[in-house]
Amino acid sequence: MLSAEESNRVRVVLVRARNPNNIGAVARAMHDFGFRRLRIVNDFSVSFETARSAVDASEVLSAAETFASVADAVADCTLVVGTTAVGERALQHPLHTLQQAAPRIRNELAREDHAGRVAVLFGSEKTGLSNEELSHCNWLLTIPMQQYEDARHPSMNLGQAAAVCLYELVRQGGESLVTVDDPAATAGERERLIALLTEVLRKSGYINRHPANCTNEQLRRLVVRMGVSTGDAPVWMGILRQMLWKLGTADAG
Amino acid sequence: MLSAEESNRVRVVLVRARNPNNIGAVARAMHDFGFRRLRIVNDFSVSFETARSAVDASEVLSAAETFASVADAVADCTLVVGTTAVGERALQHPLHTLQQAAPRIRNELAREDHAGRVAVLFGSEKTGLSNEELSHCNWLLTIPMQQYEDARHPSMNLGQAAAVCLYELVRQGGESLVTVDDPAATAGERERLIALLTEVLRKSGYINRHPANCTNEQLRRLVVRMGVSTGDAPVWMGILRQMLWKLGTADAG
Repeated sequence: MLSAEESNRVRVVLVRARNPNNIGAVARAMHDFGFRRLRIVNDFSVSFETARSAVDASEVLSAAETFASVADAVADCTLVVGTTAVGERALQHPLHTLQQAAPRIRNELAREDHAGRVAVLFGSEKTGLSNEELSHCNWLLTIPMQQYEDARHPSMNLGQAAAVCLYELVRQGGESLVTVDDPAATAGERERLIALLTEVLRKSGYINRHPANCTNEQLRRLVVRMGVSTGDAPVWMGILRQMLWKLGTADAG
Repeated sequence: MLSAEESNRVRVVLVRARNPNNIGAVARAMHDFGFRRLRIVNDFSVSFETARSAVDASEVLSAAETFASVADAVADCTLVVGTTAVGERALQHPLHTLQQAAPRIRNELAREDHAGRVAVLFGSEKTGLSNEELSHCNWLLTIPMQQYEDARHPSMNLGQAAAVCLYELVRQGGESLVTVDDPAATAGERERLIALLTEVLRKSGYINRHPANCTNEQLRRLVVRMGVSTGDAPVWMGILRQMLWKLGTADAG
């Protein structure tokens, strides 16, 4: 079981959810399991406040925050987890089953410095999370489902998937992992690092020579795989700024 | 994980579900987690075959069976489990959390004689299961939810509750309990036992003297609490038939 404080460090992030009733269903599951922070990423406005399926979830819905991009929605989070149906695409991320994922998430929520904040991302009903959206994720979780020989890959209804994930997070008898790495930096810090790195790569001519390796997405993945800690982030920033300064000097010189 | 054969021994029973979309959502969750036997108990016909939320669940829906009563719907089952929101009513049944319930259910499905069949009952969206409906249940399970001080008792959306329950049933790492009692009789056998007992109580004059103890519901609970095994059921039937014969003789004499 999570403490109220730990539950409060979880952000459920719905990316391009199209059906207001699904948003309401997610809010209801959050209410049922004691979560409060709902974030909506949409490039159009969804009238989710009137969602019919949101019995008892009005508090969650009225406190929901909307964001224009995934980057903004996860900027204050130290762990960003994407949900996916296996087989949905060639996976470029570590993948854990929900059961394996839950103790990792609880671990981050129970960080000693109380600074762990976890975003759990759910993609649109039709297409799931895009590659760009996945590139913000530290790793992915999947709910193990029945495989049918003749069928397309299975996928769950959005409200049901959220209910199952949140249930597993608060499930009794779930232990935290014992080992703890250095606490992770926030996604916002990571984005600043990526921006700096991109600038360095541009100035250094690397991007011109290897454009295929340097899409925004690929650079983000590269940095995400570093697993930058709060302690290391400023160190890397310092290094990159120094390089940038040097490259500017070289240009001028 | 359950074997295909074990999954096939589970019946999901929806009692007085009103919203076709909820029925569709339950069917979809069943499809997702590999369950196939859906049973609908309704005193009016529901056009659930057109349920919109039933993506990929058409096979489950078209194979769904409809019954006029809970007794009929669970007649072939050896374990009948009701789902309930805690606090919904004064509980007259043993209650287990979903996590405690799952190994008991898996245990029954894995019975050595392959005769274990488990019904999991879900009540109507508004009222849950009635006392009469609960009286068919061996015990109840509840999904642990957040308790709010100011709120009415929490309750889950039907499709989400079913998804969470079925997820826990197939959850990896779930073990069966080790101890196994004598295999349970089917609910149908139990009903015949109850009918015989009622007849005996009537003929013996007990019902006239203690009518308050002898509602259908209370007699059913009485017998359910006995936990009658397949081996014992015919023995009890024999005893009751003998008593009935004797009482008839006494009447005549």
